[in-house]
Amino acid sequence: MERKGFTLWFTGLSGAGKTTLARIVEAELLEREHRVEVLDGDIIRTNLSKGLGFSKEDRDTNIRRIGFVCNLLTRNGVVAIAAAISPYREVRDELRNDIGDFVEVYVKCPIEVLAERDVKGLYKKALAGELKNFTGVDDPYEAPVDPEVLVETNSETPEASAAHIIARLEELALVSRGEPQASAMKK
Amino acid sequence: MERKGFTLWFTGLSGAGKTTLARIVEAELLEREHRVEVLDGDIIRTNLSKGLGFSKEDRDTNIRRIGFVCNLLTRNGVVAIAAAISPYREVRDELRNDIGDFVEVYVKCPIEVLAERDVKGLYKKALAGELKNFTGVDDPYEAPVDPEVLVETNSETPEASAAHIIARLEELALVSRGEPQASAMKK
Repeated sequence: MERKGFTLWFTGLSGAGKTTLARIVEAELLEREHRVEVLDGDIIRTNLSKGLGFSKEDRDTNIRRIGFVCNLLTRNGVVAIAAAISPYREVRDELRNDIGDFVEVYVKCPIEVLAERDVKGLYKKALAGELKNFTGVDDPYEAPVDPEVLVETNSETPEASAAHIIARLEELALVSRGEPQASAMKK
Repeated sequence: MERKGFTLWFTGLSGAGKTTLARIVEAELLEREHRVEVLDGDIIRTNLSKGLGFSKEDRDTNIRRIGFVCNLLTRNGVVAIAAAISPYREVRDELRNDIGDFVEVYVKCPIEVLAERDVKGLYKKALAGELKNFTGVDDPYEAPVDPEVLVETNSETPEASAAHIIARLEELALVSRGEPQASAMKK
Protein backbone atom coordinates (compact mmCIF):
# COMPACT_ATOMS: atom_id res chain seq x y z
CA MET A 1 0.00 0.00 0.00
CA GLU A 2 1.28 3.45 -0.89
CA ARG A 3 1.76 5.72 2.13
CA LYS A 4 2.16 9.44 2.28
CA GLY A 5 5.56 10.80 3.22
CA PHE A 6 6.05 13.44 5.88
CA THR A 7 8.78 14.80 8.12
CA LEU A 8 8.51 14.29 11.86
CA TRP A 9 10.88 16.80 13.42
CA PHE A 10 11.95 16.32 17.04
CA THR A 11 13.47 19.37 18.69
CA GLY A 12 14.61 19.81 22.29
CA LEU A 13 17.59 19.95 24.61
CA SER A 14 20.31 17.34 24.79
CA GLY A 15 19.10 14.35 26.78
CA ALA A 16 15.41 15.28 26.60
CA GLY A 17 14.57 12.02 24.81
CA LYS A 18 14.47 12.91 21.11
CA THR A 19 16.26 9.84 19.78
CA THR A 20 14.52 7.48 22.22
CA LEU A 21 11.12 8.75 21.09
CA ALA A 22 12.18 8.70 17.43
CA ARG A 23 13.05 5.00 17.72
CA ILE A 24 9.77 4.08 19.44
CA VAL A 25 7.72 5.99 16.87
CA GLU A 26 9.81 4.45 14.07
CA ALA A 27 9.00 0.93 15.29
CA GLU A 28 5.27 1.71 15.47
CA LEU A 29 5.21 3.23 11.98
CA LEU A 30 7.15 0.29 10.51
CA GLU A 31 4.53 -1.94 12.13
CA ARG A 32 1.89 0.07 10.27
CA GLU A 33 3.82 -0.49 7.04
CA HIS A 34 5.21 2.96 6.51
CA ARG A 35 8.67 3.45 5.10
CA VAL A 36 10.70 5.20 7.78
CA GLU A 37 14.19 6.66 8.16
CA VAL A 38 15.55 8.13 11.39
CA LEU A 39 18.15 10.86 10.97
CA ASP A 40 19.58 11.69 14.33
CA GLY A 41 22.23 14.22 15.17
CA ASP A 42 25.02 11.65 15.40
CA ILE A 43 24.24 9.96 12.08
CA ILE A 44 24.20 13.32 10.35
CA ARG A 45 27.29 14.74 12.02
CA THR A 46 29.14 11.61 10.86
CA ASN A 47 27.81 11.37 7.33
CA LEU A 48 26.90 14.87 6.20
CA SER A 49 28.35 17.43 8.55
CA LYS A 50 31.79 16.35 9.65
CA GLY A 51 33.88 19.46 10.15
CA LEU A 52 30.99 21.66 11.19
CA GLY A 53 31.14 23.14 14.67
CA PHE A 54 28.57 24.64 17.03
CA SER A 55 28.42 28.27 15.99
CA LYS A 56 24.98 29.50 14.97
CA GLU A 57 26.04 29.39 11.34
CA ASP A 58 27.37 25.84 11.52
CA ARG A 59 24.35 24.64 13.50
CA ASP A 60 22.03 26.16 10.90
CA THR A 61 24.00 24.53 8.08
CA ASN A 62 23.78 21.19 9.86
CA ILE A 63 20.02 21.52 10.31
CA ARG A 64 19.52 22.61 6.69
CA ARG A 65 21.37 19.49 5.53
CA ILE A 66 19.13 17.27 7.63
CA GLY A 67 16.17 19.16 6.18
CA PHE A 68 17.40 18.69 2.61
CA VAL A 69 17.52 14.91 3.13
CA CYS A 70 14.14 14.89 4.94
CA ASN A 71 12.64 16.73 1.99
CA LEU A 72 13.97 14.18 -0.54
CA LEU A 73 12.60 11.32 1.54
CA THR A 74 9.26 12.99 2.28
CA ARG A 75 8.45 13.70 -1.34
CA ASN A 76 9.15 10.05 -2.12
CA GLY A 77 6.64 8.65 0.33
CA VAL A 78 8.98 8.06 3.26
CA VAL A 79 8.46 9.19 6.85
CA ALA A 80 11.65 11.08 7.65
CA ILE A 81 12.21 11.36 11.39
CA ALA A 82 14.76 13.97 12.45
CA ALA A 83 16.09 14.02 15.99
CA ALA A 84 18.46 16.92 16.49
CA ILE A 85 18.55 19.72 19.05
CA SER A 86 17.84 22.26 16.27
CA PRO A 87 17.89 25.21 18.66
CA TYR A 88 16.99 27.99 16.23
CA ARG A 89 13.37 28.69 15.39
CA GLU A 90 14.01 30.46 12.10
CA VAL A 91 15.73 27.54 10.38
CA ARG A 92 13.10 25.10 11.67
CA ASP A 93 10.39 27.31 10.19
CA GLU A 94 12.34 27.55 6.95
CA LEU A 95 12.34 23.75 6.71
CA ARG A 96 8.63 23.65 7.52
CA ASN A 97 8.02 25.93 4.54
CA ASP A 98 10.31 23.99 2.22
CA ILE A 99 9.04 20.54 3.11
CA GLY A 100 5.35 21.26 3.58
CA ASP A 101 4.38 17.99 5.24
CA PHE A 102 6.18 18.86 8.44
CA VAL A 103 5.22 17.89 11.98
CA GLU A 104 7.19 19.51 14.77
CA VAL A 105 7.48 17.70 18.09
CA TYR A 106 8.78 19.72 20.98
CA VAL A 107 10.43 17.35 23.43
CA LYS A 108 10.29 19.45 26.57
CA CYS A 109 12.12 18.76 29.79
CA PRO A 110 13.35 21.30 32.37
CA ILE A 111 17.08 21.79 32.21
CA GLU A 112 17.37 21.15 35.96
CA VAL A 113 16.02 17.64 35.41
CA LEU A 114 18.40 17.06 32.48
CA ALA A 115 21.38 18.34 34.43
CA GLU A 116 20.40 16.07 37.31
CA ARG A 117 20.03 12.96 35.08
CA ASP A 118 23.04 13.89 32.92
CA VAL A 119 23.25 10.50 31.21
CA LYS A 120 26.30 11.42 29.11
CA GLY A 121 27.96 13.63 31.72
CA LEU A 122 27.74 16.59 29.34
CA TYR A 123 25.76 18.98 31.53
CA LYS A 124 28.29 18.67 34.32
CA LYS A 125 31.10 19.61 31.93
CA ALA A 126 29.09 22.43 30.38
CA LEU A 127 28.09 23.87 33.76
CA ALA A 128 31.74 23.70 34.83
CA GLY A 129 32.67 25.64 31.70
CA GLU A 130 34.67 22.75 30.26
CA LEU A 131 32.33 22.37 27.29
CA LYS A 132 31.49 25.51 25.36
CA ASN A 133 28.44 26.33 23.22
CA PHE A 134 26.27 23.84 25.02
CA THR A 135 22.61 24.42 24.24
CA GLY A 136 20.63 25.54 27.25
CA VAL A 137 23.74 26.33 29.27
CA ASP A 138 25.78 28.92 27.36
CA ASP A 139 24.08 28.63 23.96
CA PRO A 140 20.45 29.54 23.22
CA TYR A 141 17.49 27.22 22.72
CA GLU A 142 14.45 28.75 21.07
CA ALA A 143 11.43 26.63 21.94
CA PRO A 144 8.74 26.16 19.27
CA VAL A 145 5.88 28.62 19.58
CA ASP A 146 3.13 26.39 18.25
CA PRO A 147 4.43 22.85 17.63
CA GLU A 148 2.07 20.16 16.34
CA VAL A 149 2.96 18.06 19.36
CA LEU A 150 4.33 18.89 22.79
CA VAL A 151 5.60 16.08 24.97
CA GLU A 152 6.87 16.63 28.49
CA THR A 153 9.37 13.90 29.16
CA ASN A 154 9.90 14.75 32.81
CA SER A 155 6.32 13.81 33.65
CA GLU A 156 5.48 10.89 31.36
CA THR A 157 7.10 7.67 30.16
CA PRO A 158 8.64 7.44 26.67
CA GLU A 159 5.83 5.04 25.71
CA ALA A 160 3.18 7.56 26.77
CA SER A 161 4.92 10.36 24.84
CA ALA A 162 5.17 8.15 21.76
CA ALA A 163 1.48 7.24 22.00
CA HIS A 164 0.69 10.95 22.20
CA ILE A 165 2.69 11.57 19.01
CA ILE A 166 1.09 8.70 17.13
CA ALA A 167 -2.38 9.89 18.16
CA ARG A 168 -1.57 13.34 16.75
CA LEU A 169 -0.34 11.82 13.48
CA GLU A 170 -3.64 9.93 13.23
CA GLU A 171 -5.53 13.18 13.86
CA LEU A 172 -3.54 14.83 11.09
CA ALA A 173 -4.46 11.88 8.84
CA LEU A 174 -0.78 11.14 8.22
CA VAL A 175 -1.00 7.62 9.57
CA SER A 176 -3.97 5.29 9.54
CA ARG A 177 -5.92 4.87 12.75
CA GLY A 178 -6.42 1.81 14.84
CA GLU A 179 -4.46 -1.31 15.49
CA PRO A 180 -1.26 -1.91 13.62
CA GLN A 181 -1.86 -4.60 11.03
CA ALA A 182 0.65 -7.05 12.44
CA SER A 183 -0.87 -6.88 15.93
CA ALA A 184 -4.40 -7.16 14.54
CA MET A 185 -3.43 -10.31 12.68
CA LYS A 186 -2.27 -11.93 15.87
CA LYS A 187 -5.74 -11.67 17.42
CA MET B 1 2.89 -0.35 -8.20
CA GLU B 2 5.90 -0.82 -5.94
CA ARG B 3 9.21 -0.42 -7.76
CA LYS B 4 12.64 -1.48 -6.68
CA GLY B 5 15.09 1.25 -5.75
CA PHE B 6 18.62 1.39 -7.09
CA THR B 7 21.43 3.89 -7.57
CA LEU B 8 22.43 4.90 -11.07
CA TRP B 9 25.87 6.43 -10.78
CA PHE B 10 27.20 8.57 -13.64
CA THR B 11 30.94 9.20 -13.60
CA GLY B 12 33.05 11.03 -16.15
CA LEU B 13 34.90 14.24 -16.93
CA SER B 14 33.37 17.69 -16.73
CA GLY B 15 31.25 18.34 -19.81
CA ALA B 16 31.04 14.69 -20.86
CA GLY B 17 27.24 14.72 -20.56
CA LYS B 18 26.50 13.24 -17.13
CA THR B 19 23.72 15.63 -16.13
CA THR B 20 22.19 15.70 -19.61
CA LEU B 21 21.97 11.91 -19.63
CA ALA B 22 20.72 11.84 -16.03
CA ARG B 23 17.82 14.11 -16.98
CA ILE B 24 16.85 12.07 -20.06
CA VAL B 25 16.96 8.82 -18.10
CA GLU B 26 15.02 10.46 -15.26
CA ALA B 27 12.21 11.44 -17.65
CA GLU B 28 12.01 7.94 -19.07
CA LEU B 29 11.91 6.31 -15.63
CA LEU B 30 9.24 8.74 -14.42
CA GLU B 31 7.24 7.78 -17.49
CA ARG B 32 7.57 4.16 -16.36
CA GLU B 33 6.27 5.18 -12.92
CA HIS B 34 9.45 4.89 -10.94
CA ARG B 35 10.21 7.36 -8.19
CA VAL B 36 13.37 9.20 -9.21
CA GLU B 37 15.71 11.80 -7.72
CA VAL B 38 18.64 13.33 -9.57
CA LEU B 39 21.55 14.43 -7.39
CA ASP B 40 23.99 16.30 -9.51
CA GLY B 41 27.25 17.88 -8.45
CA ASP B 42 25.81 21.40 -8.28
CA ILE B 43 22.77 20.44 -6.17
CA ILE B 44 25.01 18.62 -3.72
CA ARG B 45 27.73 21.26 -3.54
CA THR B 46 24.99 23.76 -2.67
CA ASN B 47 23.02 21.69 -0.20
CA LEU B 48 25.40 19.23 1.41
CA SER B 49 28.97 20.18 0.66
CA LYS B 50 29.35 23.92 0.80
CA GLY B 51 32.83 24.69 2.07
CA LEU B 52 34.44 21.58 0.63
CA GLY B 53 37.19 22.11 -1.92
CA PHE B 54 38.76 19.95 -4.59
CA SER B 55 41.51 18.12 -2.71
CA LYS B 56 41.30 14.32 -2.88
CA GLU B 57 40.01 14.28 0.69
CA ASP B 58 37.29 16.86 0.06
CA ARG B 59 36.26 15.25 -3.20
CA ASP B 60 35.96 11.89 -1.45
CA THR B 61 33.88 13.45 1.34
CA ASN B 62 31.60 15.05 -1.23
CA ILE B 63 31.12 11.75 -3.04
CA ARG B 64 30.47 9.87 0.21
CA ARG B 65 27.73 12.38 1.09
CA ILE B 66 26.06 11.87 -2.26
CA GLY B 67 26.38 8.14 -1.66
CA PHE B 68 24.84 8.39 1.79
CA VAL B 69 21.77 10.10 0.34
CA CYS B 70 21.60 7.66 -2.60
CA ASN B 71 21.64 4.80 -0.12
CA LEU B 72 18.73 6.25 1.89
CA LEU B 73 16.70 6.73 -1.28
CA THR B 74 17.61 3.37 -2.80
CA ARG B 75 16.53 1.36 0.22
CA ASN B 76 13.21 3.17 0.15
CA GLY B 77 12.32 2.22 -3.39
CA VAL B 78 13.60 5.32 -5.16
CA VAL B 79 15.90 5.42 -8.18
CA ALA B 80 18.72 7.71 -7.05
CA ILE B 81 20.62 9.14 -10.01
CA ALA B 82 23.99 10.67 -9.16
CA ALA B 83 25.81 12.81 -11.71
CA ALA B 84 29.17 13.89 -10.36
CA ILE B 85 32.69 13.61 -11.77
CA SER B 86 33.60 11.22 -8.90
CA PRO B 87 37.17 10.80 -10.14
CA TYR B 88 38.42 8.24 -7.60
CA ARG B 89 37.74 4.56 -8.12
CA GLU B 90 38.13 3.53 -4.50
CA VAL B 91 35.32 5.66 -3.14
CA ARG B 92 33.01 4.68 -6.02
CA ASP B 93 33.67 1.02 -5.20
CA GLU B 94 33.07 1.74 -1.51
CA LEU B 95 29.63 3.12 -2.38
CA ARG B 96 28.91 0.15 -4.61
CA ASN B 97 29.55 -2.12 -1.62
CA ASP B 98 27.50 -0.01 0.78
CA ILE B 99 24.51 0.48 -1.49
CA GLY B 100 24.40 -2.91 -3.20
CA ASP B 101 21.93 -2.03 -5.95
CA PHE B 102 24.46 0.12 -7.75
CA VAL B 103 24.78 0.64 -11.50
CA GLU B 104 27.85 2.53 -12.68
CA VAL B 105 27.67 4.40 -15.96
CA TYR B 106 30.96 5.58 -17.38
CA VAL B 107 30.28 8.63 -19.53
CA LYS B 108 33.35 8.58 -21.72
CA CYS B 109 34.53 11.36 -23.98
CA PRO B 110 38.11 12.17 -25.01
CA ILE B 111 39.45 15.20 -23.23
CA GLU B 112 40.50 16.75 -26.57
CA VAL B 113 36.84 16.77 -27.62
CA LEU B 114 35.74 18.27 -24.29
CA ALA B 115 38.44 20.95 -24.41
CA GLU B 116 37.37 21.76 -27.97
CA ARG B 117 33.65 22.04 -27.05
CA ASP B 118 34.35 23.69 -23.68
CA VAL B 119 30.75 24.72 -23.09
CA LYS B 120 31.48 26.47 -19.78
CA GLY B 121 34.92 27.79 -20.76
CA LEU B 122 36.49 25.78 -17.93
CA TYR B 123 38.96 23.72 -19.95
CA LYS B 124 40.48 26.82 -21.48
CA LYS B 125 41.06 28.27 -18.00
CA ALA B 126 42.38 24.98 -16.64
CA LEU B 127 44.76 24.48 -19.57
CA ALA B 128 45.98 28.05 -19.10
CA GLY B 129 46.67 27.26 -15.44
CA GLU B 130 44.05 29.74 -14.19
CA LEU B 131 41.93 26.99 -12.65
CA LYS B 132 43.69 24.50 -10.42
CA ASN B 133 42.74 20.91 -9.56
CA PHE B 134 40.72 20.46 -12.71
CA THR B 135 39.95 16.80 -13.32
CA GLY B 136 41.66 15.48 -16.43
CA VAL B 137 43.96 18.47 -16.71
CA ASP B 138 45.98 18.73 -13.50
CA ASP B 139 43.92 16.38 -11.31
CA PRO B 140 43.49 12.63 -11.86
CA TYR B 141 40.48 10.80 -13.26
CA GLU B 142 40.37 7.07 -12.63
CA ALA B 143 38.08 5.49 -15.20
CA PRO B 144 35.88 2.59 -14.08
CA VAL B 145 37.44 -0.79 -14.81
CA ASP B 146 34.24 -2.71 -15.39
CA PRO B 147 31.21 -0.38 -15.33
CA GLU B 148 27.73 -1.77 -15.92
CA VAL B 149 27.34 0.67 -18.79
CA LEU B 150 29.81 2.50 -20.98
CA VAL B 151 28.54 5.32 -23.17
CA GLU B 152 30.78 7.21 -25.55
CA THR B 153 29.29 10.64 -25.90
CA ASN B 154 31.66 11.82 -28.60
CA SER B 155 30.27 9.29 -31.05
CA GLU B 156 26.56 9.02 -30.22
CA THR B 157 23.67 11.35 -29.43
CA PRO B 158 22.44 11.80 -25.85
CA GLU B 159 19.23 9.99 -26.83
CA ALA B 160 21.18 7.01 -28.11
CA SER B 161 23.30 6.91 -24.94
CA ALA B 162 20.17 7.13 -22.79
CA ALA B 163 18.53 4.30 -24.74
CA HIS B 164 21.66 2.24 -24.17
CA ILE B 165 21.44 2.85 -20.41
CA ILE B 166 17.73 2.01 -20.24
CA ALA B 167 18.31 -1.19 -22.20
CA ARG B 168 20.97 -2.22 -19.70
CA LEU B 169 18.62 -1.46 -16.77
CA GLU B 170 16.02 -3.69 -18.41
CA GLU B 171 18.63 -6.43 -18.81
CA LEU B 172 19.48 -6.10 -15.12
CA ALA B 173 15.73 -6.41 -14.36
CA LEU B 174 15.79 -3.07 -12.55
CA VAL B 175 13.18 -1.52 -14.82
CA SER B 176 10.37 -3.26 -16.64
CA ARG B 177 10.78 -3.93 -20.33
CA GLY B 178 8.79 -2.60 -23.21
CA GLU B 179 6.79 0.52 -23.81
CA PRO B 180 6.35 3.04 -21.05
CA GLN B 181 2.77 2.85 -19.80
CA ALA B 182 1.91 6.44 -20.74
CA SER B 183 3.05 5.96 -24.34
CA ALA B 184 1.26 2.65 -24.58
CA MET B 185 -1.96 4.30 -23.43
CA LYS B 186 -1.78 6.83 -26.24
CA LYS B 187 -1.91 4.10 -28.87
